[in-house]
Order: sequence, then structure tokens, then C-alpha cells
Amino acid sequence: MIKDGLPILALTMGDAAGVGPEVCVKALTHSEITVLYKPVVVGDRKILESALQFLPSQRRPRFSDSAGLPDPSIPTESGTIAVYQPCAPLKNVQPGKLSAEAGHAAVEYIKAAVELGKAGRINGIVTAPINKEAIRLGGCQYPGHTEILAEGFGVKNYSLVLSARNIFVFHVTTHVSLRSALDMITQKRVYGQIKLAYFLSSVLGRGDEVIAVSGVNPHASENGLFGDEEELQIAPAVAQAQAEGIPVVGPLPADVLFPRMAKGQYKFCIAMYHDQGHAVFKSLYFDEGVNVTVGLPIIRTSVDHGTAFDIAGKGVANEDSMVEAIKLAALLGPKWSSISLEAAAL
Amino acid sequence: MIKDGLPILALTMGDAAGVGPEVCVKALTHSEITVLYKPVVVGDRKILESALQFLPSQRRPRFSDSAGLPDPSIPTESGTIAVYQPCAPLKNVQPGKLSAEAGHAAVEYIKAAVELGKAGRINGIVTAPINKEAIRLGGCQYPGHTEILAEGFGVKNYSLVLSARNIFVFHVTTHVSLRSALDMITQKRVYGQIKLAYFLSSVLGRGDEVIAVSGVNPHASENGLFGDEEELQIAPAVAQAQAEGIPVVGPLPADVLFPRMAKGQYKFCIAMYHDQGHAVFKSLYFDEGVNVTVGLPIIRTSVDHGTAFDIAGKGVANEDSMVEAIKLAALLGPKWSSISLEAAAL
Repeated sequence: MIKDGLPILALTMGDAAGVGPEVCVKALTHSEITVLYKPVVVGDRKILESALQFLPSQRRPRFSDSAGLPDPSIPTESGTIAVYQPCAPLKNVQPGKLSAEAGHAAVEYIKAAVELGKAGRINGIVTAPINKEAIRLGGCQYPGHTEILAEGFGVKNYSLVLSARNIFVFHVTTHVSLRSALDMITQKRVYGQIKLAYFLSSVLGRGDEVIAVSGVNPHASENGLFGDEEELQIAPAVAQAQAEGIPVVGPLPADVLFPRMAKGQYKFCIAMYHDQGHAVFKSLYFDEGVNVTVGLPIIRTSVDHGTAFDIAGKGVANEDSMVEAIKLAALLGPKWSSISLEAAAL
Repeated sequence: MIKDGLPILALTMGDAAGVGPEVCVKALTHSEITVLYKPVVVGDRKILESALQFLPSQRRPRFSDSAGLPDPSIPTESGTIAVYQPCAPLKNVQPGKLSAEAGHAAVEYIKAAVELGKAGRINGIVTAPINKEAIRLGGCQYPGHTEILAEGFGVKNYSLVLSARNIFVFHVTTHVSLRSALDMITQKRVYGQIKLAYFLSSVLGRGDEVIAVSGVNPHASENGLFGDEEELQIAPAVAQAQAEGIPVVGPLPADVLFPRMAKGQYKFCIAMYHDQGHAVFKSLYFDEGVNVTVGLPIIRTSVDHGTAFDIAGKGVANEDSMVEAIKLAALLGPKWSSISLEAAAL
């Protein structure tokens, strides 16, 4: 790990045909970010340079001359952006046009960031949006960022976490059909998520806060009346974690747990499937949210929006979510510790 | 149907050991309700009388001398409540104590209201909470109110609808395990819900508003990547309704549809399963919500809370939800029409 100087955050540029390059460049004009961190954009230098046109001329950063990673011990020159370009320059990418080339490159940027992370050369990863159809066209079969990162770091117990206003929603399952999700709700996986949530709450110095675990059936099955996942899988996982002294409750009916979360009673929540967490979270916090991957050896955060092909190349993309993602990485990154993460491993 | 005078609303008292009797009596001290409707409480007269103790003496209504239904053509005497008691007085019911006797009677009150409805003697039903465990102890196997009412009226296509702030969330499935719900998401059932939603929007004079139908898998399956319910069942149902000129969109990802609902873009929404609608709805509107059953020949609304045994008999129960339920029945009742409902039948 980097010991001296400001920590380095890798920003992966995402799909070059989407709003990723624009929100990266715009976010890096925010001085509260550049004074705290040394950002390096992992992406395509020419595409990033062309995104400068969307900034007023007095706010345009320049790209640092030396390609590659910044030196953590040398202060960043104000108004410069470091770019790390791990593959050949893009040739035929148009804003808003689905592109196998851009899709393939977007995966390369993420993989490059993983390698930098594994080599201890960066302290965190912040990702701009990718397009799943583009990466499929580009020859990659991953359902999303999280899976690429987990495979790259060789991690099996991880979570896609949604975060806003100090609330964190973990997911036992994510990008699988709801039928498959039901088969994947096992005691082991639920317990694994509780451990990750406890890791995160402890990293934040909030390890005494209650972790709330959702049920999956109506009324959390109402004592077995509607389904048995609560009795067979979820309740035993909660009991297992409680026996270790982790403050955790559940399974609670989803329509009890999430209203309590909305009122501020629970800040660390565990959803059983993608929509259970996402639909409530986005209905409450809209675009405020930041995605966090918990379970990797370094922090990874992400914007909570997509490539937005419809507005790409128009200069109207809003960088707020990227700024929030960088700030959350800045908050969590220095506190992350492989040692405490190992304690969370199964 | 009642033709002259003020319409009659039956309020079923619910479980006598819960807060139902208290919220009924409290709600009926609100003059804006009693001037619009002739309420009759279907329940146990003695239990209702004992709930008067929770009101300040100057606000205590008295119970009308003639037992049974009020005459719609005679103005209600101010400050009186009519009680219709369809079965023997309760003997051994204590506030907050689970009771087979109270559970059995609660079902009798609902069944009596259904008979009054079928005989055209009332215009709507408003229900106070029942306790599922109590009704089971009392020998009834219904999972909830909605099912008792649907069976009583002989209706197959109906919906449990959550309502607040002019928003209505329909449910394709309700009190079944999530696994069973997945099997029950058929084109026929989804189409049936769209028809019911269109019936309701038309009754309200809002038939041109878009009805939004949710998917069931993450990202509404992302073109078949995660599950096939969208392609095989939901999309065909939407197309079928669109072909009839019904303004309906979907299937939309749940984490797209419900945030749009929260922002006011969609007011008529169709959830595929209990928690999909309930968890979001209650996180946004908490206890403001009112349950509506759409698909019965008369309007039925319900409070959105349970029997609350923990506070029963203490006088601290809040009648707001009951007041809202009565007001919504008052709004919808006169517009309900068996003829338009038949048009919604499959």
C-alpha cells in the first residue's frame, strides 16, 4: 500500500460513448476533491481531452504530461489531470452510439484498475458507467462492474451496496433472475452479507449500530405461512451472527424494515435481492445514491447512473453523482484495511 | 342499490381485542364524515360502547336506539352511531389478548357486511384491522380481508390497492410466498390488473392517465438476460391492453417505475408481488396509506395498520388512517358502478 503522500484514486472512464468521460472531467474541476486525493483517470486520453469542451475555458484542467500514475509524494499541480491509458487509443467511437470497441475498452479500464489495486499502487477505485450491451458486443460476458471487480480481485464474498445520507443497503443477490435469487438465498450468503455490513459499520466507527436483515416473503413469511426462506436460511444466519456478538436483527418484513430505514431507525440494511433494495432506495434518494462494493481489498465506489447515451456528447451531463462517489471513496479509502476485511471473510 | 338519501357505509369493527373498535368510534366523532355518509358499525355493541371511555365526555357519541341499519332517507341525528351486530355478544375478549372468539367474530362482521352489500343495502365497506392468527384460531383459513371479501362477492379478478395522495398501487399477487407469486404472474392476471386499474382511473375521471406496469426481475430482465416473466407474461398483457386503447406502459424495471411514481410521474402503478408494492409505498407514505379493494361490486377501503395489540385498550390509538379510509370510500363510493366494473371483468 501507498505509505507517503496523498492517496491515489483511480477513476475508470467507463463507456467512451456515454457520459462517463464528461462526468470524470467535470468532477475533477472540483477543488475539494483534488486537494484531498490524487486522482488518475484510467481511460482514453483523446476522448477525455475532447470532453474538456464542455467546461468553461477558465475551468478547464490540463492533462499532465507524464502519462501514467501520479507520484503520491509530489503535490499535484493545480488544475492537472493524470491519465493512465492501458490500451490502444479508441478509433471509431461516437457519443451515444453503441460500440463494441468502447465496450471492450471499458472492461480493459476496469481490469487495469484492478491490477493497479492488486499491485498496491492505488487506494481506491471510482467507476463511471459502462453499457452492458456494449461490453457484450465487445466480447465480455459480465453482468456488471461488481462481478468484474470481484473476479479480478479473486473475491467470493462481496456486496453491491447502495449508499446515501449515511445509509448503506447490502444485497444478498444482484443481477440474476428473481427465481435464481430465491435459490441463492442461503444461510451462508446471508451470513456473509451480515459480516460485510459489520465490517463496513466497524470501518466507519459505527460498529454498535444495528444491522437490519430483510425477509423475502410477504410479512417475512408470517411464521411459515408464505414460504420458508426466513425459517430455513435467513433466521439461522442472523442467529449465527448474533452469537458472535454482531448487533443484527431480522428477518423483518420488507415493508417494515425499509419504512424504518426511511425514518432513520436503521442505517445498515440487508436486502435479499436486487429490486428489494434498489426500488425502495431509488424511490427515496433518486440520484443522490452512490454504489459501493464492499468485500474488495480496496474501496470501490461508483456513480449511480448509467451511460445515458441520449445525452452523451451534449455537455449537459451532471457530475454530482461522480463527485459524491469520489467523496465517499475519500472518506472510506483510508479506513479500509485488508486485515479487518479478512476478519469478514467466510 | 340505495337510491335516496345519504349513502350508507358499513364499518366492520375488526378484532375486538385490537384497536379497531377504538378507531371506529374515534373516527365517527369527525363531523366531516357523519355529514357526508351514514355510517353503520358492524360489530359488537358492548365492545364499541366501552371504547367511548377513550373520548372526552363532550365528544362521546351515543349509539342509536334502534339496532341495525340506519334509514338512508332519515337524517342522522347528530352524535349518534348506528351499530349492526350480526352475531351473539362477545363474552371473554380482553384488549391485547389473542382470542379465537374475537377472531371468529371479526370474520362474521365482514361476512355480514358482504351480505348487506349483496342485498344493495350499503354503498361501501370500510374495514378495521383483523388478526390473522386470531381468525385462524377462530376456525377460518383466510390469509386476509381481501380474500374473504372476494369469495363473499364471488369475484375472481380483484386487487389489493394501496392508496395515498392520489396514487394507487395495484398488486398482481399478494399473500403467497414469493416463489408462488412468480408462478402466478401470468398474462391473464397482469391483464386483469391493468383492466382494474383502468376501471379505477376511469371512475375517478382520470382514464387518460398512464398506467405503469412493473417488471419482476432486475432491470425488468434486461431483454431476457435475467428471467423471462417480462417477455412471456407481462409484455403480452401490456400489449393486449394497449390494443384496446388503454394508456399503459411497461414492463418497467421496479427501480425505474417506483422512483418515477415517487416523483409524481405515475399515479396508477401495477406491482407484481406484495413487497414490491408495499415496501416502496410504506417507505414513502408510512401510515398515510389506505387499502382499497378494486374488483368488488362496491367500494371497500381499509386502514393500513394492524390490530396493534400492544396499545389496545389504552386509548392511544390514532384514528387518522380510519378517517382517511372513510373519506376515500366517500369519494369513490358514489362513482362505483357495477356496469363499468363488468367492463373490467375478464
